[in-house]
Amino acid sequence: MIIERLIERLRIMPGIGPKSAQRIAYYLLDRNRHGAIQLADALVEAMQQIKYCDRCRTYSEVERCAICCDQGRDVTRLCIVETPADQIALEQVTGFRGYYFVLLGRLSPLDGVGPEAIGLDRLQQRLQEGEVEEVIIATNPTAEGEATAHYISEMVHQHALKVTRIAHGIPMGGELEFIDPTTLNHAFNRRVTVERFNR
Amino acid sequence: MIIERLIERLRIMPGIGPKSAQRIAYYLLDRNRHGAIQLADALVEAMQQIKYCDRCRTYSEVERCAICCDQGRDVTRLCIVETPADQIALEQVTGFRGYYFVLLGRLSPLDGVGPEAIGLDRLQQRLQEGEVEEVIIATNPTAEGEATAHYISEMVHQHALKVTRIAHGIPMGGELEFIDPTTLNHAFNRRVTVERFNR
Repeated sequence: MIIERLIERLRIMPGIGPKSAQRIAYYLLDRNRHGAIQLADALVEAMQQIKYCDRCRTYSEVERCAICCDQGRDVTRLCIVETPADQIALEQVTGFRGYYFVLLGRLSPLDGVGPEAIGLDRLQQRLQEGEVEEVIIATNPTAEGEATAHYISEMVHQHALKVTRIAHGIPMGGELEFIDPTTLNHAFNRRVTVERFNR
Repeated sequence: MIIERLIERLRIMPGIGPKSAQRIAYYLLDRNRHGAIQLADALVEAMQQIKYCDRCRTYSEVERCAICCDQGRDVTRLCIVETPADQIALEQVTGFRGYYFVLLGRLSPLDGVGPEAIGLDRLQQRLQEGEVEEVIIATNPTAEGEATAHYISEMVHQHALKVTRIAHGIPMGGELEFIDPTTLNHAFNRRVTVERFNR
């Protein structure tokens, strides 16, 4: 039946279980059929037209994304992230004015995701162009993200370039009592020296 | 831009905020473009083809829904619910074999939702047909649901028919300590006599 089919297909979205899917289906039927049709149009348009930037691999509807096209950014700094969402998050809050490289994944040999699948051959080429001076690795602090970071840092070091990794530790505003043991241990062992403010 | 438009339109769904919408958009682009197109098809199909049953007002792709078409049910009992989702929930768990009437809303004079907007003129006609003997009111125990229940019970009483209301109280498995005060007070004051099992 049509409603059941809609509910079933709504469930392909992450975080949408059977109850939410039913609620969404009824809500759209009841209150916003016009909006639902517009959503369907946007889905088709995006799925058919969004490709990948040929330089940084982020999602783009044109061959090269807006950031890669921006000549005013600092070409000496390249920030490596796992996903376009990570890139947007950093772009929104950090004021970073270099360029990005998006892996669209992380190394995962057991799942057959090797260096080429996450574009490291193209990263290699990019480093050979000779403009990048610092590679900032901002993969996630998961086991696979860490392994990917390690692999990339080895690769960058072969080019004798500076490699940095975004800091990990207690989140700002976090309370020590409630932090998971791994983070707490990492934060304690990688403690940083506090410089004297006035000498 | 296309992605922004998709993210914005995903937000018409209840329970989907900006973060979830972004996550869904990237997930579909990254992992399931085919599924997203199928979802778009299902949305258009449902929005264009789902109408209302001409007897009970629930969603139906044909003029009269399957339950209303089922001649084997108990015509003397009519259960009144606010939404098709409520009807499905009752149908799945209660074993009720009468018919339903779906209000598709609740009385809300301040929002301009009067008796006709929730189909009470058609309910009136249905009661005049003379087959219904018991009206079971299963509107939600909210202020508006209660007001709607009250209005309907007055209406049914004019036809000298039996009116029942689904029971409200402590949910099965609930712990008194954590129940909200209104429910607890209601449950205490509407306590029911326990009959002796053996005489």
